[in-house]
Amino acid sequence: MTDQIKYVLGEKDIPRTWYNLAADLPGGAPMLHPGTGAEITVDDLLGIMPETLARQELSREAEIEIPEPVRQIYAQFRPAPLFRARRLERALGTPARIYYKYEGGSPAGSHKPNTAIAQAYYNKQAGVTRLATETGAGQWGSSLALAGALFEMDVSVFMVKVSYHQKPYRRMLMATYGARCVPSPSTETAAGRAILAEDPDCPGSLGIATSEALEVAGGNSDVNYAGGSVLNHVLLHQSVIGQEAIAQFALADDYPDIVIGATGGGSNFGGLAFPFLGAQLRGGSTVRVIAAEPSSCPTMTQGTLSYDFGDTAGLTPLIKMHTLGHSFVPPPVHAGGLRYHGMAPLVSEALDRDLIEATAVKQLSCFASGITFARAEGIVPAPESTHAIDVAIREALRCRDEGVARTILFGLSGHGHFDLGAYEAYLSGSLRDEEFDPAALESSLAKLPGFVSV
Amino acid sequence: MTDQIKYVLGEKDIPRTWYNLAADLPGGAPMLHPGTGAEITVDDLLGIMPETLARQELSREAEIEIPEPVRQIYAQFRPAPLFRARRLERALGTPARIYYKYEGGSPAGSHKPNTAIAQAYYNKQAGVTRLATETGAGQWGSSLALAGALFEMDVSVFMVKVSYHQKPYRRMLMATYGARCVPSPSTETAAGRAILAEDPDCPGSLGIATSEALEVAGGNSDVNYAGGSVLNHVLLHQSVIGQEAIAQFALADDYPDIVIGATGGGSNFGGLAFPFLGAQLRGGSTVRVIAAEPSSCPTMTQGTLSYDFGDTAGLTPLIKMHTLGHSFVPPPVHAGGLRYHGMAPLVSEALDRDLIEATAVKQLSCFASGITFARAEGIVPAPESTHAIDVAIREALRCRDEGVARTILFGLSGHGHFDLGAYEAYLSGSLRDEEFDPAALESSLAKLPGFVSV
Repeated sequence: MTDQIKYVLGEKDIPRTWYNLAADLPGGAPMLHPGTGAEITVDDLLGIMPETLARQELSREAEIEIPEPVRQIYAQFRPAPLFRARRLERALGTPARIYYKYEGGSPAGSHKPNTAIAQAYYNKQAGVTRLATETGAGQWGSSLALAGALFEMDVSVFMVKVSYHQKPYRRMLMATYGARCVPSPSTETAAGRAILAEDPDCPGSLGIATSEALEVAGGNSDVNYAGGSVLNHVLLHQSVIGQEAIAQFALADDYPDIVIGATGGGSNFGGLAFPFLGAQLRGGSTVRVIAAEPSSCPTMTQGTLSYDFGDTAGLTPLIKMHTLGHSFVPPPVHAGGLRYHGMAPLVSEALDRDLIEATAVKQLSCFASGITFARAEGIVPAPESTHAIDVAIREALRCRDEGVARTILFGLSGHGHFDLGAYEAYLSGSLRDEEFDPAALESSLAKLPGFVSV
Repeated sequence: MTDQIKYVLGEKDIPRTWYNLAADLPGGAPMLHPGTGAEITVDDLLGIMPETLARQELSREAEIEIPEPVRQIYAQFRPAPLFRARRLERALGTPARIYYKYEGGSPAGSHKPNTAIAQAYYNKQAGVTRLATETGAGQWGSSLALAGALFEMDVSVFMVKVSYHQKPYRRMLMATYGARCVPSPSTETAAGRAILAEDPDCPGSLGIATSEALEVAGGNSDVNYAGGSVLNHVLLHQSVIGQEAIAQFALADDYPDIVIGATGGGSNFGGLAFPFLGAQLRGGSTVRVIAAEPSSCPTMTQGTLSYDFGDTAGLTPLIKMHTLGHSFVPPPVHAGGLRYHGMAPLVSEALDRDLIEATAVKQLSCFASGITFARAEGIVPAPESTHAIDVAIREALRCRDEGVARTILFGLSGHGHFDLGAYEAYLSGSLRDEEFDPAALESSLAKLPGFVSV
């Protein structure tokens, strides 16, 4: 084949270790106990996760071994393909070489099983048989439901209410795997009831759903919490994405000048970009790394870098991150997986050190780019992924205008087969850009916890 | 990895030719002109398809070259993986080795792009820019919509009305690719209007939708018809499935004793099984080949082998096939892709020569098997595919009971991400087995055309 479009690795090429960017960013701010202000320890986390995961959460080691049973399940859909988007390049008339790392081939249709399987495995090893979690668009919830089915565990998912209604097939997918899915805010938790008392029509948010899941996990000794993003160990597990991509670029005899990922909590972005950043920090080629966030929930471009809670009710440790304030409720855009008030501490740290840049993109532009991509490459992207596509297309067009042939890599975190209602709304003209409300930000930032950054 | 679960081939291993079973079944009954009874010629077909496809339709050559631009598009999702279902084997406690050839990784989520891309390519080469077709569950329609997007062609899809309402996301997927999707029977054609006049609540069928598409293609010189199943050239294009599987079994150092495919019109079944039958007819190992059809539309197990029309209105040539009669309207089961009154002539011929066997399976049993599979293997199967799974599980349990370790291969033709409404109905207990009505069969068979089998 003259014009190769797919770079494939074998089962034996699945990474044997996860890569931890924390090892290469010494001096990062630790998580703090909200009551005492003391640094969080492994013991503090044991109420909601097994010791293995607690140790990974706080680890500063660069490489952590992937258990063989996890690699064995990964083997069904990993290594994930790296595609050269030749048809999109032609459609754009750009000299840029555009690549995308596609995670939609997993049984749940996104990158989320990379950590769901690992978390279910470690919990099962520790004798835990029940897991609770939150989900936005449902990619994370259905991935944990999948992992629960594979390890025969009970899974309860609090799904952000607006997404629960926008994406009914995600809820049905969870049920097919045998999991329980509850629209959040719900009446099942004190956190949910408090929100509903204040605003019965609250569309929900990832912060609220996280409070509900944490409350259930914290209050039941046989239930653990499983997080879909933000946390260090989640980004750690996702590092298989970028590690594979680096090996695939060697096959392609190329290397990215620009790496782009969509960012909600940071797990797909971190999974893709961190191994490239790690290589750079250890003397490898410099890459321009761009985090693409929704303009309706502009954590990095409009938020502040501060200690804040990871959830709305304030049940998590304090985490230093770019945040809109834990009480911020983002407008109901279709990219439900990006509707989170904060940003993973490792992504926040990388941004603070100017290792990456952030840009905010609008919903309508993202759907237009998603359709351009779908009609050129065939794959209909998840609304979250269209944020990366939108920036990639912008950079490819800049290459065209400047007459420069840069190599662009973006993360295609999942397919949009569950999100076609959003595409229909876009095509019918009924979708609009959700405006970001500076007053809501001001009010939310006023409620930040009083701890000063250390 | 000790227990390999995936057998992967490289881009260069995509077959270079399609395999045509007709070459190894000499003396098969030709298609006949309904007016004259004469054998159909290439010229007769040119009103609805380009010469290249018409020649493939009537070809008796064993191997037909795959154009390089088609292979280039195949490369995005082919070779498709062959999986060893080790987790399902453990769940069933069977000594059988179960494999499945998974076609759900294509951008449209099924095997249908294998022929959609080829047909769009040949039409585009011939200067045709508009295509019309029918679709049941929507897998074919969305695949042709995908191919239309890639080749910049206008695509109109008549979608069986019951599936149009059961599977709204399929319709939205077609729209995202830029195609037009119309519920059938529609008022846009004489065939549709005639059906609606008799039964305004008609749920539609593949036979009716085919009539509508053929009418549009036949009546417009710039529109061609593209068929999703049944026709010889469609099964030809699908032969990449079985050819790849044979190469993958060599990697696994194994070979199937039993090959199982779900059958509606026969394209997934033929694509998987024919290369194995061809190898057997040329002196290779004997395989037991089982066609799994729905008991609500039992073309092979209850129908008759006769010349009949491929569509309800009688616009096609006469085709010798197992049929329930072209006026038979199957009950509205969720496996919309299997709701077809006839069977591909090559599959019918193979059944008549005892090269394959047929079995009918019930909807509820299929969904139960589909859920067993999903919870063990992670992939939620399309309702059509669950028919093959149901038979595979039955054979695997027979291996357990007999203490025999047979090798079983089945075709997993697509994922069920668009069909979760059906799973929800099953899980909630509201789904039922649709009974086959012998009186409807009798009445339909009475309307068979008068031609006697030659």
